[in-house]
Amino acid sequence: MKDFKNEDALVLLSGGQDSTTCLYWAKQHFKAVQALCISYGQRHSQEVKVAQHIAEMAAVPFQLLDAGIISQLAPNSLTDLSMRMDEDKPADSYPNTFVPGRNMIFLTLAAATAYAKGIRHLVTGVSEADYSGYPDCRDTFIRSLNTSLNLAMDKQFIVHTPLMWRNKEEVWQLSDELGVFDIVRNETLTCYNGIIADGCGHCPSCKLRKKGLEAYLKKKSTLVEAGKI
Amino acid sequence: MKDFKNEDALVLLSGGQDSTTCLYWAKQHFKAVQALCISYGQRHSQEVKVAQHIAEMAAVPFQLLDAGIISQLAPNSLTDLSMRMDEDKPADSYPNTFVPGRNMIFLTLAAATAYAKGIRHLVTGVSEADYSGYPDCRDTFIRSLNTSLNLAMDKQFIVHTPLMWRNKEEVWQLSDELGVFDIVRNETLTCYNGIIADGCGHCPSCKLRKKGLEAYLKKKSTLVEAGKI
Repeated sequence: MKDFKNEDALVLLSGGQDSTTCLYWAKQHFKAVQALCISYGQRHSQEVKVAQHIAEMAAVPFQLLDAGIISQLAPNSLTDLSMRMDEDKPADSYPNTFVPGRNMIFLTLAAATAYAKGIRHLVTGVSEADYSGYPDCRDTFIRSLNTSLNLAMDKQFIVHTPLMWRNKEEVWQLSDELGVFDIVRNETLTCYNGIIADGCGHCPSCKLRKKGLEAYLKKKSTLVEAGKI
Repeated sequence: MKDFKNEDALVLLSGGQDSTTCLYWAKQHFKAVQALCISYGQRHSQEVKVAQHIAEMAAVPFQLLDAGIISQLAPNSLTDLSMRMDEDKPADSYPNTFVPGRNMIFLTLAAATAYAKGIRHLVTGVSEADYSGYPDCRDTFIRSLNTSLNLAMDKQFIVHTPLMWRNKEEVWQLSDELGVFDIVRNETLTCYNGIIADGCGHCPSCKLRKKGLEAYLKKKSTLVEAGKI
């Protein structure tokens, strides 16, 4: 990607593997980076603390927005603790972790925040490579949203999605290339059960993370053995 | 417009002239109508009470969403009471009543609410005829937003904007055609100073409303005199 070494970026940071990798990716490509964390009655308010800690380690300013309003919108298992979380995606609909319009609300709030700061670059860790069934993680949605944001605020925002076409193995590889593999492995929280680093190991999120990690470590050891890195 | 007499609509209702006219417009075109009011630290929390009263008079269900988060985003004179409101639009920028992304956030929240209710028709009173300088009132923005909403939630929402090409005079005319001229004139709150019906008379919103009203009443009396209505 072309660097924007004279411009700042705002990174949506949740404290998970993907957004943390994006934070360090942005630090490499922009003049300065700020982190925006949006809380919304997640199962684990610990996520916010993790995100803040990661921002501190990366030495970037951290801002928290409370979007509790999202819990008022529609029943889902990420905000309604009385619901059991789907282990897998139902064949005929979305998983009950689907919060309708979540990424659209997040990115619009991020753009409004960036507008006030005079920042036009937004970075988000959405990906359709390990497509979970969420329509608002797709590239086509992000492109449409980018246009809508620009029309809404009469600005030229650029939404960056460095992970869009990377599967979890490739996200691990990117964090290694950025020199932050250990930080991402040990400090991020991806697990639905709120356990940091390698997590509980059996929730859908942990399974996906672990599978990608194992694939990447295997690939890397093959390359090391062959003397290629 | 084609009627959708077998389908419901969700109307964004603020309690002002425009959204109230839209509420009655929707009652004529859809099977059933629901009102959604979004509060966000407006200057006048009275607006919410006015909106609720109007929904009761129209016999439609009323839901309130508290989007106080909007006040956290950027300084503007609608949410920050320490700021003096611009009387006119500055030549080189937007009026300081501009809340970046406001309509985008409102319509995304409305769509997420509609999604949970199984409703696909959204009605909003935005207009570019009496264009106030807000980019998120333009037709091109609404069309882009509609596409983004549909991609985000994988639904076919239809955003209706019955006032898009009507100036204030024509909005008064529409309310008369719908048989609710008196309700709109006497029960709605448009005034920035929180005075119901004809308002304070000197804020920008009152001036615009009054100018349109006088133009419509003049036109109507001409037609009446000529025996045309």
